[in-house]
Amino acid sequence: MKPLLILSYVGTEFCGYQVQPGKRTVHATLQDSIEAVLGKRYAVIGCSRTDSGVHAKEFCATLEAKTQELSVSLDRLPLALNAHLPRDLRVIGIRAVPASFHVRYCEHEKEYVYRIWNSPYPNPFEEDRALFVPYPLDCERMQQAADLLVGEHDFAAFQAAGSKITEDTVRCVSLFCVEREGDLVLLRVRANGFLYHMVRIFAGTLLEVARGKRAPKEMTEILASKNRRCAGFTAPACGLYLNRVIYPESVFSSQ
Amino acid sequence: MKPLLILSYVGTEFCGYQVQPGKRTVHATLQDSIEAVLGKRYAVIGCSRTDSGVHAKEFCATLEAKTQELSVSLDRLPLALNAHLPRDLRVIGIRAVPASFHVRYCEHEKEYVYRIWNSPYPNPFEEDRALFVPYPLDCERMQQAADLLVGEHDFAAFQAAGSKITEDTVRCVSLFCVEREGDLVLLRVRANGFLYHMVRIFAGTLLEVARGKRAPKEMTEILASKNRRCAGFTAPACGLYLNRVIYPESVFSSQ
Repeated sequence: MKPLLILSYVGTEFCGYQVQPGKRTVHATLQDSIEAVLGKRYAVIGCSRTDSGVHAKEFCATLEAKTQELSVSLDRLPLALNAHLPRDLRVIGIRAVPASFHVRYCEHEKEYVYRIWNSPYPNPFEEDRALFVPYPLDCERMQQAADLLVGEHDFAAFQAAGSKITEDTVRCVSLFCVEREGDLVLLRVRANGFLYHMVRIFAGTLLEVARGKRAPKEMTEILASKNRRCAGFTAPACGLYLNRVIYPESVFSSQ
Repeated sequence: MKPLLILSYVGTEFCGYQVQPGKRTVHATLQDSIEAVLGKRYAVIGCSRTDSGVHAKEFCATLEAKTQELSVSLDRLPLALNAHLPRDLRVIGIRAVPASFHVRYCEHEKEYVYRIWNSPYPNPFEEDRALFVPYPLDCERMQQAADLLVGEHDFAAFQAAGSKITEDTVRCVSLFCVEREGDLVLLRVRANGFLYHMVRIFAGTLLEVARGKRAPKEMTEILASKNRRCAGFTAPACGLYLNRVIYPESVFSSQ
């Protein structure tokens, strides 16, 4: 067995998840705290490479070490790591998983939330934590567009131009809800995988639908085009949250 | 008529509301932006002197100038001010009120919320925005204590020691609710006036009740003592929000 860490971080001051020389990243910061606590630099595998400024509520990462060989018990590890982690990155859960478990290759779904502050006035509490959109958003229209993106589709048109993944661009979106909570609009998207910038291009395209610049039914044409230029703009990173990773319980039982 | 501004601010980087030489305060920051937009340094009267680190969702302040003499129309003033204000302070509403209206002396109630992140693990999104309490809180017990503080009482025991107001310490608390939303616990207090640190001492005392250090019924004895030392600790500023100010509509009609 090895430890699966659940992390929560405010992405604003991080240059994304993945290690980059000389940059403050989630991965490097976590590895430093693990080294400080356990006295050894263990490998860490994260569930996703979130971009600079993107947040995570429940990010999953495995510590590639045998639980029983660690110098700190599993129960006490979150507290010990949090004592070394900065205020914008925290361990908020832990569990033991089989050595064979892989945070990215095991079957799973990810849920992202794109957060929009939709009011005539900006909200200082939502700075860097939501996209500020001062014009009224028609959520019903956005939901109509979202409905057309649910299901198994080739999402090539919703992938950043120049992205490395070019062959297999078919993904299955199992949920796409547009929710309003007062002046906050949340786009909640769940899928078995995401292409690079997929949720941010979804958000940008739906915002164009909400303003009346596009008809909801255009989503079908955009999917068929497989052309990035047919979709809308890439909404900024500050509104994006990796909300949670959903594994079937079966992947946690040793084979 | 004169403008009544509704302000929202994250208190973390401010040394409170009130002007202090050489310090970054809400009042001085607002006056600077007013001067930048209107070309003149007008007096501003705020509804409360929030402490360093205390937040406000809907703070009220009047601009002591005749609406019709301003170089910018009332409609456009929030946008113009926000263009000059920093990201942690925003104008989120405006209305014209009679020249006789006084933001503090007119009849009103204020509602404060004290926010507690109650989970075994800290939440990076709540840093500086809630008090982190890792042990379980018994909200029913806290509500029992809160119930005894509702009504007209002499709150001398819940006033910071050495506070300037020493004569009239009778206030009327019209609402005191303990609300749980998942791992977030909110203490919502409404009154016709507050003594210095009153809500923070309420919060500290209720936290001692929640841990079992005090019985809810002790609130009656604390009130009767009129002695600050009988109440609990002063909970930190970061959890406190001036949520809103409630004026009866009658104060907005000219006499």
